[in-house]
Amino acid sequence: MISLATIREAHDRIRPYIHRTPVLTNHTINDRVGAELFFKCENFQKVGAFKARGGLNAVLQVAEHQEGKAITTHSSGNHAQAVAFAARQVGMPAYIVMPRTAPQVKKNAVRNYGADIIECEPTLDAREAGVRDVIERTGAVLVHPFDDDRVIAGQATAAKELIEDFGTEKSFDTILAPVGGGGLLSGTSLITHYLSPTTRVIAGEPEGAADAILSFRSGRVEKAPYINTIADGLMTNLSERTLRLIREHVADILTVSDEEIIAAMRLVWERMKIIIEPSCAVPLAAVLKHKDQFAGQRVGIILTGGNVDLGKLPF
Amino acid sequence: MISLATIREAHDRIRPYIHRTPVLTNHTINDRVGAELFFKCENFQKVGAFKARGGLNAVLQVAEHQEGKAITTHSSGNHAQAVAFAARQVGMPAYIVMPRTAPQVKKNAVRNYGADIIECEPTLDAREAGVRDVIERTGAVLVHPFDDDRVIAGQATAAKELIEDFGTEKSFDTILAPVGGGGLLSGTSLITHYLSPTTRVIAGEPEGAADAILSFRSGRVEKAPYINTIADGLMTNLSERTLRLIREHVADILTVSDEEIIAAMRLVWERMKIIIEPSCAVPLAAVLKHKDQFAGQRVGIILTGGNVDLGKLPF
Repeated sequence: MISLATIREAHDRIRPYIHRTPVLTNHTINDRVGAELFFKCENFQKVGAFKARGGLNAVLQVAEHQEGKAITTHSSGNHAQAVAFAARQVGMPAYIVMPRTAPQVKKNAVRNYGADIIECEPTLDAREAGVRDVIERTGAVLVHPFDDDRVIAGQATAAKELIEDFGTEKSFDTILAPVGGGGLLSGTSLITHYLSPTTRVIAGEPEGAADAILSFRSGRVEKAPYINTIADGLMTNLSERTLRLIREHVADILTVSDEEIIAAMRLVWERMKIIIEPSCAVPLAAVLKHKDQFAGQRVGIILTGGNVDLGKLPF
Repeated sequence: MISLATIREAHDRIRPYIHRTPVLTNHTINDRVGAELFFKCENFQKVGAFKARGGLNAVLQVAEHQEGKAITTHSSGNHAQAVAFAARQVGMPAYIVMPRTAPQVKKNAVRNYGADIIECEPTLDAREAGVRDVIERTGAVLVHPFDDDRVIAGQATAAKELIEDFGTEKSFDTILAPVGGGGLLSGTSLITHYLSPTTRVIAGEPEGAADAILSFRSGRVEKAPYINTIADGLMTNLSERTLRLIREHVADILTVSDEEIIAAMRLVWERMKIIIEPSCAVPLAAVLKHKDQFAGQRVGIILTGGNVDLGKLPF
């Protein structure tokens, strides 16, 4: 049970280490949608993504309670950087299991935070085996990317700030976040339930990794029919934990194609002059696709991250 | 003579129409330079560039004093959009003479502000002839991109905000701006002279359009030895007016190669997650190239604009 007090404590704990990221608006995009959009810019967060929040909240508690001698996780993306960054803040060694196929630029970023990288084959089995091996060898504590209450409570602080800064005088009608493993979405829906109960929380999901919408409907953790999307941060399945929270507090999941994701990403780059990664563009793509659902509304959107390989842009 | 009072009046005049753009900092870039950099983000300005300031200050006065029935200028870049935008604010027709080779995306932007485009051959002579023709035909008033005290006073307000927000408690050691025709640089050096007289103003100029450094040394308006640079906003020569102000108030001009410009642009995109255009990266490129000159300093940098063609990126 992640209470409001738990999320408040998480926020107090991580506040000295994170940016209170700005909330931006854009007239052109508002005009195009016919709604008032408020973008919470976690692309400006430490490590370039909201993942710093969950990683810090978990790692700071591991250090505080002396739960282990080191931190480990497996990730090819922003969570790897987040855990490496958080471990450095508390002076603990971090062992990050990364698929050998992960981009060199991401490996470099993790190494720059002083973490050790353990390369493995690019399969979930190999990644989990790599982590088990690290734990046996080093006594490290696993900080899972999303199946962890402390991580979820940390991710919840992004929407907490958004609501505190722009949703108290006049509530949001809707808040949107993308869904991959569901850590951010769980946290977002929980804190919105606590602080702004009349606000609907809606998720955006890529058509090419459409597991969450199936799981949301069936009530069981389902796999996606196929995985093929530019939104590389959203390929993961939900866990029992995140599915339960999402079924309880999320109103709907909307899916979008890669074409729609790229168009939304380009719109933000061109009009807002900020860099967001493809996964980050999924909620805006859903709003652009389903304008009627949001007409005249006050809508919060969590822009999740800005880590893109500039050598491999989709336009 | 552009007095401090003139610049303050300009600021009061344009304030309702512009954004007070944020000033961003970045630890990684600071570490790399060994100085404390403060980036004034005019890439977030209306029309995506500082040019909105000068265009507004001129056009608002033309309207107020009923100097003519319409506005005209020649520009293939951000000044075209700025004048079109400003004319729309006062409900005046705008006739923008643009080379027929200007990118379609820029023509569309100008048209979206309701301005008429007059296409001409891509030479300075043809552009000036086009403007003369518009003036005869329509009674329009020319708002020159930089050779105009009202435009210069408007551009000065960017550095004014930067100094007001971050340079009063502890002065900047240096403020940098790029130099093309010299409107921004003149205004920046003037207002810095008035508000923060101990601060040095330094310009960055592309090696492939190195007219200002020659003019700065000789005291005459010189042409560049050759024009070949990715910084398409900085290809223009100075005018007598801007040269005089720059000789009086600017400490130095540093030149950088296109390779250095692209590297600085990429650094800002990757680390700050914001979109800047090549011309805009020139001052940072100069700081990165001449770190020793800025070591330990408090340095203000005007990021001038963010209008790039995403289909033609240099990386």
